[in-house]
Amino acid sequence: MSLFSEISEQPERIKNLLSNQRKNIEGIANQIRKHEIEYVFLAARGTSDNAGRYANYLLGAMNGLPLALATPSLFTYYKQPPKLKNALVIGISQSGKSPDIVSVLEEGKKQNCLTLAITNEPNSPLGKISDFVLDIQAGKEKAVAATKTYTTQLMTIAMLSTALSKNKTRWNELSKVAGWMKQVLKQNDFVKESAQRYRYIDQTIVLGRGFNYATAFEWALKLKELTYIIAEPYSSADFAHGPIAMVERGYPVLAVAPKGKVFGSMFEMLKRLRSDISAELVVISNDKKALSLAQVPLTIPNDVPEWLSPLVSILPAQLFAYHLTLAKGYNAEQPRSIRKVTETK
Amino acid sequence: MSLFSEISEQPERIKNLLSNQRKNIEGIANQIRKHEIEYVFLAARGTSDNAGRYANYLLGAMNGLPLALATPSLFTYYKQPPKLKNALVIGISQSGKSPDIVSVLEEGKKQNCLTLAITNEPNSPLGKISDFVLDIQAGKEKAVAATKTYTTQLMTIAMLSTALSKNKTRWNELSKVAGWMKQVLKQNDFVKESAQRYRYIDQTIVLGRGFNYATAFEWALKLKELTYIIAEPYSSADFAHGPIAMVERGYPVLAVAPKGKVFGSMFEMLKRLRSDISAELVVISNDKKALSLAQVPLTIPNDVPEWLSPLVSILPAQLFAYHLTLAKGYNAEQPRSIRKVTETK
Repeated sequence: MSLFSEISEQPERIKNLLSNQRKNIEGIANQIRKHEIEYVFLAARGTSDNAGRYANYLLGAMNGLPLALATPSLFTYYKQPPKLKNALVIGISQSGKSPDIVSVLEEGKKQNCLTLAITNEPNSPLGKISDFVLDIQAGKEKAVAATKTYTTQLMTIAMLSTALSKNKTRWNELSKVAGWMKQVLKQNDFVKESAQRYRYIDQTIVLGRGFNYATAFEWALKLKELTYIIAEPYSSADFAHGPIAMVERGYPVLAVAPKGKVFGSMFEMLKRLRSDISAELVVISNDKKALSLAQVPLTIPNDVPEWLSPLVSILPAQLFAYHLTLAKGYNAEQPRSIRKVTETK
Repeated sequence: MSLFSEISEQPERIKNLLSNQRKNIEGIANQIRKHEIEYVFLAARGTSDNAGRYANYLLGAMNGLPLALATPSLFTYYKQPPKLKNALVIGISQSGKSPDIVSVLEEGKKQNCLTLAITNEPNSPLGKISDFVLDIQAGKEKAVAATKTYTTQLMTIAMLSTALSKNKTRWNELSKVAGWMKQVLKQNDFVKESAQRYRYIDQTIVLGRGFNYATAFEWALKLKELTYIIAEPYSSADFAHGPIAMVERGYPVLAVAPKGKVFGSMFEMLKRLRSDISAELVVISNDKKALSLAQVPLTIPNDVPEWLSPLVSILPAQLFAYHLTLAKGYNAEQPRSIRKVTETK
């Protein structure tokens, strides 16, 4: 039962991370501020790449930093890496071992960029070659499907962003995350019951936008790894540019739509899916209107600010993927064809 | 029959684009070279976003330029755009009308960045606010599913990259693209016949890597828009990090694997899918080993260089999507739920 217990221990891990790592992160932020950083160049794969998507929005909105997601094959196969002038090069990897991520950081160092590793293994190759290491302190993750390493990566990114902007209000909000997470986990029985309804789906769409674009990707990835259904993530804007064509009456659509700046855009899409197409909706939100459109409403606390909602809204999504796995009769601990550490070049 | 005729006219459009726009593009490249550009910040949606993925690899490998894909909602909904210092801001849009793309370019201009529009409508809002406009000269595109505007966008990006690096060999290779395209289109009858086999698929995976990561995305998008199946694109590396779990015996996998630097990596994945999992394969390639693994091999000419292979390999993919649409009994000209111009914020 590693997966369920790892999902359940997230509030505790987040709480400890905040108290143990704040000073370290503030120190690193002070060092980074001394350099002229014009953009972030970020390398990651799988679940860590989804944490990178969160960094893309958060560092952009809160710290004015544009973010380029690295294309590792330019560094490994093509051996034609771009020129990284005035970039902060960040690598995110649970194991710190993936050769392609390590090679992006190596190149960053060679080009005299500041390099930063976000990892659960500070003594890994990734940790060793980086100027700064942020230890996500998730503890050993035994389940193949990553859960607590994802939320601790998000928390680390949120803390780094807050330290870079020296914002007291945001530190205060960060201290509430563990509590919000605990509240959400109380819905476990309801999620288990609701997941039964989807026993026979073999495909779905997952919608999210802005900060929760990352949540849509991570929810979809858990479903693919664990339940073997095809689950494709979209921003509601990209979805309107073509893929919406495939949704018909009763088609299951999952959506992450907490209150915030992009809520209106998500809500319009949900109304269109429900009223015009009669799609089936599972919605994670703290807005009553959005929840009332859903066949399965999954609630997050009312006072979660949008920038931290990805840390909270992924929990019901993880539970949903876990219970759907069991409902489909699969092994949640050892999915077929994948390993815990995937070493790609 | 707009869609089929638009697919067929691509060689001619590409040939004209090369002869009509080379001088203009070389002039613009000279202007750009005068500025200290440290990275490219690119905004696009849908098919144009896939052209942006090609730019990501091409400008990185050939011009040393890192590329950040814009997150338009930071500009529109959040109104917290990042600081774009020393960035070349590029917008790609067939119609030049999408408000979110226009607002990224507006912000770029406000922040004193060089701005460049790649569009089929030079007099559009996007064209009007940009410092430089590259007219893709695709002619009116009537079909809702974009085909010739995609390949003319790729050609424009390839010409810009070549002009920036002043590379004679590459100009010479560009002059051969139209001929390669013509050759590929001769397979139309074979593609039509082969598509029948997939009449009843309702989902698929599309694999591509490096320069052809874009091709995988664009092939998947055409299938979703036209045939309403769910088609998810992946790089073979990301695919190995989890989603491969959902492939079982007979599962249809489409792959773009021309010869080149990432061929080995793609070939290993295709072997694994065929030998270990007995997946069903449709492969676009000019390598005999890769083609021989496929139930349906779609051939591109032997001498296409990897950097130009996305312009050629998308043609059999477009034909495949078109014929599968007809095999499934759908209307290829007017897919349900989508419009030609989607104005998202």
